[in-house]
Amino acid sequence: MDFAHSERAQLVLEQVERFVTERVEPHHQTYRDQLVGGPDWTRWKVPPIVEELKQEARGLGLWNLFLPDSVYGAGLDNRDYAPIAEVTGRSFLAPEVFNCNAPDSGNAEVLVRYGSDQQKERWLEPLLAGTIRSAFAMTEPAVASSDATNMQATCEVVGDEVVLNGLKWWTSGAGDPRCAFYIFLGVTDPTAPRHRRHSMVLVPADAPGVKILRMVPVLGHYDEPHGHAEVQFDDVRLPKSSIIAGPGRGFEIAQGRLGPGRIHHCMRALGAAERAFQRLCERALGRVAFGRPLADLGGNRDIIANARLAIDQARLLTLRAAWALDTQGIAGARADVAAIKVVAPNVLQSVTDAAMQIHGGEGMSDPELNWFYVLGRALRIADGPDEVHRRTVARHELAKYGDRGAT
Amino acid sequence: MDFAHSERAQLVLEQVERFVTERVEPHHQTYRDQLVGGPDWTRWKVPPIVEELKQEARGLGLWNLFLPDSVYGAGLDNRDYAPIAEVTGRSFLAPEVFNCNAPDSGNAEVLVRYGSDQQKERWLEPLLAGTIRSAFAMTEPAVASSDATNMQATCEVVGDEVVLNGLKWWTSGAGDPRCAFYIFLGVTDPTAPRHRRHSMVLVPADAPGVKILRMVPVLGHYDEPHGHAEVQFDDVRLPKSSIIAGPGRGFEIAQGRLGPGRIHHCMRALGAAERAFQRLCERALGRVAFGRPLADLGGNRDIIANARLAIDQARLLTLRAAWALDTQGIAGARADVAAIKVVAPNVLQSVTDAAMQIHGGEGMSDPELNWFYVLGRALRIADGPDEVHRRTVARHELAKYGDRGAT
Amino acid sequence: MDFAHSERAQLVLEQVERFVTERVEPHHQTYRDQLVGGPDWTRWKVPPIVEELKQEARGLGLWNLFLPDSVYGAGLDNRDYAPIAEVTGRSFLAPEVFNCNAPDSGNAEVLVRYGSDQQKERWLEPLLAGTIRSAFAMTEPAVASSDATNMQATCEVVGDEVVLNGLKWWTSGAGDPRCAFYIFLGVTDPTAPRHRRHSMVLVPADAPGVKILRMVPVLGHYDEPHGHAEVQFDDVRLPKSSIIAGPGRGFEIAQGRLGPGRIHHCMRALGAAERAFQRLCERALGRVAFGRPLADLGGNRDIIANARLAIDQARLLTLRAAWALDTQGIAGARADVAAIKVVAPNVLQSVTDAAMQIHGGEGMSDPELNWFYVLGRALRIADGPDEVHRRTVARHELAKYGDRGAT
Amino acid sequence: MDFAHSERAQLVLEQVERFVTERVEPHHQTYRDQLVGGPDWTRWKVPPIVEELKQEARGLGLWNLFLPDSVYGAGLDNRDYAPIAEVTGRSFLAPEVFNCNAPDSGNAEVLVRYGSDQQKERWLEPLLAGTIRSAFAMTEPAVASSDATNMQATCEVVGDEVVLNGLKWWTSGAGDPRCAFYIFLGVTDPTAPRHRRHSMVLVPADAPGVKILRMVPVLGHYDEPHGHAEVQFDDVRLPKSSIIAGPGRGFEIAQGRLGPGRIHHCMRALGAAERAFQRLCERALGRVAFGRPLADLGGNRDIIANARLAIDQARLLTLRAAWALDTQGIAGARADVAAIKVVAPNVLQSVTDAAMQIHGGEGMSDPELNWFYVLGRALRIADGPDEVHRRTVARHELAKYGDRGAT
Repeated sequence: MDFAHSERAQLVLEQVERFVTERVEPHHQTYRDQLVGGPDWTRWKVPPIVEELKQEARGLGLWNLFLPDSVYGAGLDNRDYAPIAEVTGRSFLAPEVFNCNAPDSGNAEVLVRYGSDQQKERWLEPLLAGTIRSAFAMTEPAVASSDATNMQATCEVVGDEVVLNGLKWWTSGAGDPRCAFYIFLGVTDPTAPRHRRHSMVLVPADAPGVKILRMVPVLGHYDEPHGHAEVQFDDVRLPKSSIIAGPGRGFEIAQGRLGPGRIHHCMRALGAAERAFQRLCERALGRVAFGRPLADLGGNRDIIANARLAIDQARLLTLRAAWALDTQGIAGARADVAAIKVVAPNVLQSVTDAAMQIHGGEGMSDPELNWFYVLGRALRIADGPDEVHRRTVARHELAKYGDRGAT
Repeated sequence: MDFAHSERAQLVLEQVERFVTERVEPHHQTYRDQLVGGPDWTRWKVPPIVEELKQEARGLGLWNLFLPDSVYGAGLDNRDYAPIAEVTGRSFLAPEVFNCNAPDSGNAEVLVRYGSDQQKERWLEPLLAGTIRSAFAMTEPAVASSDATNMQATCEVVGDEVVLNGLKWWTSGAGDPRCAFYIFLGVTDPTAPRHRRHSMVLVPADAPGVKILRMVPVLGHYDEPHGHAEVQFDDVRLPKSSIIAGPGRGFEIAQGRLGPGRIHHCMRALGAAERAFQRLCERALGRVAFGRPLADLGGNRDIIANARLAIDQARLLTLRAAWALDTQGIAGARADVAAIKVVAPNVLQSVTDAAMQIHGGEGMSDPELNWFYVLGRALRIADGPDEVHRRTVARHELAKYGDRGAT
Repeated sequence: MDFAHSERAQLVLEQVERFVTERVEPHHQTYRDQLVGGPDWTRWKVPPIVEELKQEARGLGLWNLFLPDSVYGAGLDNRDYAPIAEVTGRSFLAPEVFNCNAPDSGNAEVLVRYGSDQQKERWLEPLLAGTIRSAFAMTEPAVASSDATNMQATCEVVGDEVVLNGLKWWTSGAGDPRCAFYIFLGVTDPTAPRHRRHSMVLVPADAPGVKILRMVPVLGHYDEPHGHAEVQFDDVRLPKSSIIAGPGRGFEIAQGRLGPGRIHHCMRALGAAERAFQRLCERALGRVAFGRPLADLGGNRDIIANARLAIDQARLLTLRAAWALDTQGIAGARADVAAIKVVAPNVLQSVTDAAMQIHGGEGMSDPELNWFYVLGRALRIADGPDEVHRRTVARHELAKYGDRGAT
Repeated sequence: MDFAHSERAQLVLEQVERFVTERVEPHHQTYRDQLVGGPDWTRWKVPPIVEELKQEARGLGLWNLFLPDSVYGAGLDNRDYAPIAEVTGRSFLAPEVFNCNAPDSGNAEVLVRYGSDQQKERWLEPLLAGTIRSAFAMTEPAVASSDATNMQATCEVVGDEVVLNGLKWWTSGAGDPRCAFYIFLGVTDPTAPRHRRHSMVLVPADAPGVKILRMVPVLGHYDEPHGHAEVQFDDVRLPKSSIIAGPGRGFEIAQGRLGPGRIHHCMRALGAAERAFQRLCERALGRVAFGRPLADLGGNRDIIANARLAIDQARLLTLRAAWALDTQGIAGARADVAAIKVVAPNVLQSVTDAAMQIHGGEGMSDPELNWFYVLGRALRIADGPDEVHRRTVARHELAKYGDRGAT
């Protein structure tokens, strides 16, 4: 057993840390100042600082670090990339700067693994070059998306074409002016076995029939210029070659996409939690009331200790899940991945809640803490609610005792 | 012991319930549609529907119900008004419709109790008529406001004038175009005994030297057109008669203001919690996944039971505090009031969190639930953080055993 | 709404408080010294001090206070008796001293309501006189007793006799040398509608075929000389007149028995919690570490505040349930009674846990705190586990929205 | 980063698992049957099965595995022994069977590191041979032992002798008929610097002046025949050579003793938690109510998932602390060790609480679960209360930001 990172991971980690500290964090305010946001997404602009920082990071080789493929990406495995993902999570801006942000990273991984040469050339290469962005259209309003059999959007194969219909929301990334394509998940054959019904289709953002209805706010936040869109797909006709890996393989691809993606999400969440915790500690020492620093008042040291315990435990669990993914594959790591998906967002939410509380009125209005808080809350739903992941963990546990896994 | 409401309370309660259900709630969307909001507060407008509904409510006598004074108000005592406040809390719009919203209600009460005839005529009467609004300027940035000795803003008496200087924030209500005056709390004599240093001053919103710097968002929300302002008071000169009850009585008045105000806040919070809980239950029965209503999946019934237990207990505690206030006065009810200030906002936050969770992606974007969630979170800081109120409760408890009350 | 106790309740309450403080608590150690306990229940003896104190209490009229019937008992209704029950719960010894302990109080109430004249004369009168004790045999090993349809013990009517067979455990009170009879619950007609199958039978403790197999320890505690027995009923033949209220009414009687009994249990639990809390506060002020009383170290004041909030809320909920029982009957108060059965034991367990913790090593070995802790833990199972009561609360809540109440 | 155990650790682990499953667990009842226990400790006897199993284990080389020293012990480092300690924690009997139980293991380690040749020959060798047992006398009644400056017992050097006086309790292991010596911690020079005042002294159990006053029960449990004694040391005179490593080094030795000992305690606690969790799952599948296995009722799957998350996280944290101890020494691992001392006992307590709850009435009386529950509760105090360890974690955290560490 060894808790030290590999030499290569350690090396890259230090570079990324330095870049985040020296180049990215000092430009948080630049970014906010340059941003054109608000509910009207058609006016959104990408702050120029993003592209500048991307060029710098790419020049240093700090680019596509998430991609274990050594031809297209950095060739780091999950356990090596995990601590790097954590560091990028400290800054709302860093993931994109390193071209490691969701959903592009997951979309890239799908294309690396399942894409045809043509698909790779058209979509993967510019995505990895950072010249375009993408979105992922899976969740639907009006049904419980955690039960895949509820999905109503369709992608029927008609002759040489695939025809898409349906309403999606939480299509994250669709608001970005650079968003060039969506990966769309829909039902191709409702009569097929449960896990062979769906297909994944590459949809150009400007394909006729694709219509963004609105951007959906998260607790009032629009995440500009990224955005979470409600999108109507209305008889969108595409060549059949737009289907990734062929009809009926959507579920299989989705499963594979989720493992590493959840590791990334969770490690970034823990990076955010660690940053919020740092703010908490600084405030505890820096602010005085009743003649003493807040650290010496009431239960604040217990709060600090408990936050440290929670973050460290969640991080170890996530690193172990990354290791399990590396050594046992996605099937072998399923319960581990479900476990961290419950733990990490909750840690982020609760640590940030405590950090806001110790900041008093200021905490209610601090953009960094507020964003972490909304993120933590949202991640408890995004990519499957806590409840569904707890069910997976319990089913896996009870299976050891012969249970077949009830609903 | 009798848990039934008085006949009069019951009667008014039913009228208020009917009005909220039939007249106010159906206009929530009207209000949102009419609202001009956004970060630029100078463009804010009051939705016309508000004034229409106010006229209706006033016509039915459902007006100034919060005011126990029977000359100026409805003459209901705290325990009778408490359940009415709860019902108004179900709707973000209702408190103002009945002219019962903060901080106007607290400001009115201060004026009824401590105002001179001239002050009453100029400010109280239009406030109670609903033709003007007001704000309360106490909290300051850069210091821990929960420790009153930290206050830096001053209101010096110079000859016949009182001169105000200082920076305030979370001056709630200052964004409203109808806001006509502030009640300002500042230090008059820093050498006086601790509880005789402060004064409360009535400040016309358009007094020279009063400058709104910005509106402070709460977790990204501006609460338009109410708003929480950061306000600079720069050598604001007013006649000495603007001081309420004379110099040095600010702390005393503030204490008296807080008792009923906290009861109102808490009861409204519980009304909001009850509404969120209703939404939770409706969703639990109405949404199906894995072949069953959510109510029959996993721990949802436990969540429902626990929410019911939490709300009911918090309500009883708040009603008892109202009764204590009626029967023992503010001094006798201090620990009771501190207790509810801890309990009720936490219940609102946690019940709403659960309601959002069961709504899945929709819950992340539901305006009603999101607002309740932000409100619950903010109330854990507003009017004193949980930590300070817990200290009050503990000090009161330990005093029974001879403790003098450490910090 | 009025949170004050009635004059009569207040008067009796003060007498009971005085008696507990001045007469009962000073004899706790006497009782422990006189007790002959240990796993071998056949050697158990009742400490003589109990009977002495009973005589005193009876002489003062502080006797059978639990019984709302004004012929047989004190004629106090539930809301009046509730605060008295709380005070008796402070002392492990007090409930019996006032002849108000379970299961005798519940058994007496059953007999008052449903007993024949002959049954009353033979069993009720000596029970109310305090000359005999009794037990209640319902729970069975090997099946989930919270689901009444699981019950396996039988009481068949054969001619003029009723014949009992089955194995019971947690038959509380059976270890007492004075235990003269059991109330036994069994199935008379398995083909009857679900709520008409069971009967309650009065069984003399020395009836042939009744065999105590062992006393069941609770977390290692035997509760001597009360005891929780595992009892074999082996072809126990009794006259048919031993059935209370006639065959098939067992379920109905059991339901009625549970309402007031749960109020008593919960109020006593809160009395115990209040006593543990007092010990916690005294320790917090009396013990010094690192130069300060424990009250001024770390989060202890938060712990104190939270305990006060929890106890007060639980008490109010329980008092309201008592009031609901008085004003709406058992059917109307069902959800209220289920609610308190969840809340009060959990409060006792957690407050006592905190009280033990602040006592350090001493807390691990303090007989009073240890007993409260075991009691709190056990009450979360006894008389229905938390889970079952939460289900009841949730079903009641969802029924408001049209749900028929799933399992 | 690698979460796999070393080959050697894996090999020994499998042997230990097999032995616990096949040889130890089947004799749990034998042990209970052979035990002579009860409050009167002078009658306690060691069940013969213990010595039989010890011989077997020793014969297989599964002996003194805890001792990293490769001359006296197995030579496994902390991270290798940790998973083995976990497995022994599943069985109350296993630690002693492998000669790895507290406080003997800690005492042996002290002697290996600091003992003179003579001390090793007289006490260490028979201890490692398993022919004697030992006790550790540190905690004192009447003072807060978590603050070492409170210690009142003395061991004065007078000429060639050291003279011990004082009252100790929670002297664990002193009840064992085989207990041959105590390690005693007392003050030698109260005027020395804070960490040079204390000495550790080897005291033969039969030394004149040593008097066991009673065995202290833990929540009513005596832990026979181990026992936790209250011991009077009354002018106990021993040769000066009985002091370990010389006068004034007691604090230093105690610090070194605590690191590995806490790892062992925590891993055993997690082994117990894992066993309780297994029982929980088996019960969830095996018991039926309302027509379904308990696993499919209410929130039981959430409880199962949460227990798995809690145990796994606590285990990872403890393994990392073991690794930190191996790679950075005791000083470098201090905060890590404090962290696990908070986490692991709480996990044991809460998982066992859930396991008991799902067992209903049976859970209240199950010897295995009850013992785990008492153990978990007691470990939150033993070896320093949670509060003190949280302070250590917080101080370590705040030191990163320049704090000097308040009390």
